[in-house]
Amino acid sequence: MSRTQLESELAALKKEYEGYKAKGLKLDLSRGKPERIQVELSLPMLDLLGSGDSLSAEDGTDLCNYGVLDGIPEAKRLMAEMLGVSAGQVFIGGNSSLNLMHDCMGIGFVHGYPGGSGGWHKEPGVKFLCPSPGYDRHFAVAANFGFELVSLPMTEEGPDMDEVERLIADPAVKGIWCVPKYQNPLGITFSDEVVKRFAALSPAAGDFRIFWDNAYAVHDLYPGQGDVLLNLMDALTKTGKQDMALMFTSTSKITFPGAGISAIGASQNNIAWIKKQMGQQTIGYDKLNQLRHVRFLPDMKAVNALMVKHADFLRPKFEAVQEALDTGLTDSGVACWTKPRGGYFISLDLLDGCAKRTVTLCKEAGVVMTDAGAPFPHGKDPDDKNIRIAPSFARIPEAKEAATLLCICAKIACAEKLLAD
Amino acid sequence: MSRTQLESELAALKKEYEGYKAKGLKLDLSRGKPERIQVELSLPMLDLLGSGDSLSAEDGTDLCNYGVLDGIPEAKRLMAEMLGVSAGQVFIGGNSSLNLMHDCMGIGFVHGYPGGSGGWHKEPGVKFLCPSPGYDRHFAVAANFGFELVSLPMTEEGPDMDEVERLIADPAVKGIWCVPKYQNPLGITFSDEVVKRFAALSPAAGDFRIFWDNAYAVHDLYPGQGDVLLNLMDALTKTGKQDMALMFTSTSKITFPGAGISAIGASQNNIAWIKKQMGQQTIGYDKLNQLRHVRFLPDMKAVNALMVKHADFLRPKFEAVQEALDTGLTDSGVACWTKPRGGYFISLDLLDGCAKRTVTLCKEAGVVMTDAGAPFPHGKDPDDKNIRIAPSFARIPEAKEAATLLCICAKIACAEKLLAD
Repeated sequence: MSRTQLESELAALKKEYEGYKAKGLKLDLSRGKPERIQVELSLPMLDLLGSGDSLSAEDGTDLCNYGVLDGIPEAKRLMAEMLGVSAGQVFIGGNSSLNLMHDCMGIGFVHGYPGGSGGWHKEPGVKFLCPSPGYDRHFAVAANFGFELVSLPMTEEGPDMDEVERLIADPAVKGIWCVPKYQNPLGITFSDEVVKRFAALSPAAGDFRIFWDNAYAVHDLYPGQGDVLLNLMDALTKTGKQDMALMFTSTSKITFPGAGISAIGASQNNIAWIKKQMGQQTIGYDKLNQLRHVRFLPDMKAVNALMVKHADFLRPKFEAVQEALDTGLTDSGVACWTKPRGGYFISLDLLDGCAKRTVTLCKEAGVVMTDAGAPFPHGKDPDDKNIRIAPSFARIPEAKEAATLLCICAKIACAEKLLAD
Repeated sequence: MSRTQLESELAALKKEYEGYKAKGLKLDLSRGKPERIQVELSLPMLDLLGSGDSLSAEDGTDLCNYGVLDGIPEAKRLMAEMLGVSAGQVFIGGNSSLNLMHDCMGIGFVHGYPGGSGGWHKEPGVKFLCPSPGYDRHFAVAANFGFELVSLPMTEEGPDMDEVERLIADPAVKGIWCVPKYQNPLGITFSDEVVKRFAALSPAAGDFRIFWDNAYAVHDLYPGQGDVLLNLMDALTKTGKQDMALMFTSTSKITFPGAGISAIGASQNNIAWIKKQMGQQTIGYDKLNQLRHVRFLPDMKAVNALMVKHADFLRPKFEAVQEALDTGLTDSGVACWTKPRGGYFISLDLLDGCAKRTVTLCKEAGVVMTDAGAPFPHGKDPDDKNIRIAPSFARIPEAKEAATLLCICAKIACAEKLLAD
């Protein structure tokens, strides 16, 4: 496109943009959470634990009183299956897997992990690897403990493993953050090759830990045709490095966000260590909510059936956004984006230096997007090109309209950039 | 008593003891938790939050989805009243106030508190004051962070404040553990004078914090005639030292132990600091359980009415134990014990060097007591004289029989000690 063509294109785009702005839109594609109607799928769970019901675990434990640090047997069984580990390799937490990850990071900070030489707070310059774009709250947890965040690229198959293998030669590197399935925000699933390379890592730090947040383990948009993630624990067992990973998941986007149950999956060695430390901070987590969950979701068959219903709500929203992106950006030459088969996010890459401007334009026209840069350490996208799209919380037509406007804003920002260069 | 009299008395006691031993008792006075029948008082709470009920907070927040770090307004209001602070001075946590205390200690370890100079992990030899006997889990939390536990005596009015005032001149002293009402294990309530002296403390450490665990705030055995604890926040407001205390409470022994809600009460300055740090570890706690609680207990009137019913279960057990102690030990000259008007514990002091032996004798006759020494830092009672009695979990006749045997064991241990000296 010539400069003149570009200028005329920009003028047309701005006119279109002003039209949208005049509508006084109030739309939001920033929130990675289910819509109310979707959450209602789990309302029947609330009726399963009344005063007339048995409130004991299958092993007879009274769930209305103190006791049981690591979870009731039936909850451990369910979450073990979800995580792909054995019931002896599970610790059940409270309503927040992020809190479990924070606590596991805290255990490292105060005490370290087996294989190391004590609390990480005693070592100078501890680093955590942050494949980016990634989940902002993960990075914030490591930053909160004062650790240095080391950014490394994501590829279509997962983190750049050449980089990972290079970086772990530094003994100050104590861990890496991963969302292995339907990654936040890319929506990609780590390839078998990437998982195998993770299982074969030989980090210089003996207490290096992979923080493996399998938040979207069962969150397929196309049930039966979802991505398949290689089982990390199986891979680690083959390499004899079972202690290297701490796996996490929760029912936050299965039952109620903020009122679900969470779990750690790890080697028995790690679980014993975690139990020892967790036993200092609590007598145990809410067992009634564990029972409520297993009554509603007794096994993975029940979980998968519920996830099919969730997918029915989510799929049309993702498709509406994809359609808007296809229509608005395919021929633009300034954008590429992911087409996830599950999870909660679509990731959009624009020309370098255009993400912030795009998000600002969206905001000024009444469409809230996640802050540009948020999925990068300390909220800074070095290329200022990535935008996270969360289609789940909006209604279908709203998701589509917001995405349509996003395309216009992206094209304006890119045209401005090209004209300025 | 002459040596011969003592020997004959010991022989008679041993005979009596063998008689109990032959019964094959299986009793337990170690567990500070309510009996099942008492917990059932709160079962109706489980019926108040079904799929047909409104699941929104009074401010309209959808409680089935993410959001709200510090608690729903109605829960904050309730817990504020229980803590004696304003709603703006409250943070609602999960099912465990111990976990909140641990997290607050962790915030100190990683970041410190306003008034200080950063994370306590950077300072050598941090110390915590542990008025003893006290709550073993409190002391364990401080020990878990590697802090030195400094023991100081409890009096009938609270911690020895002369000692407290002397010890806080050391800038390495970062805090003190307190259970101000119906203290665990003494059952005493801090006097007005003690609370005022706490409020007037001038610690060398600018980020010194009083960890004020008001676990038994509403747990009177004689409703309407319970101990009255001076409001620490009011006292601190008078001295202008509101930032010096972090107060905690929970509904663990009001509704369900392990499935209640917990709270921090603190100055707005501290709450802002805590929210900033807590916001890194979680999106928020279980709001559905908060709603469940305020539906069941909308105000303090409802709480107090429930506590009257709890007292009806607990009081006869405490009275049965007191009766057994009166009968068995009043004239012995080797024991004294507390007569609490609330809480969950009675504290028994024997001759120095006799507590462990007593607990062992009890165990051998089928009566489990809390380990002697447990209420002291690192589980070591320097005088080996204190035994914690928890009458709540046993049934009335069992509590009485266990306490009767405890008296026999105590007298045997003391007679043996006197004969050995």
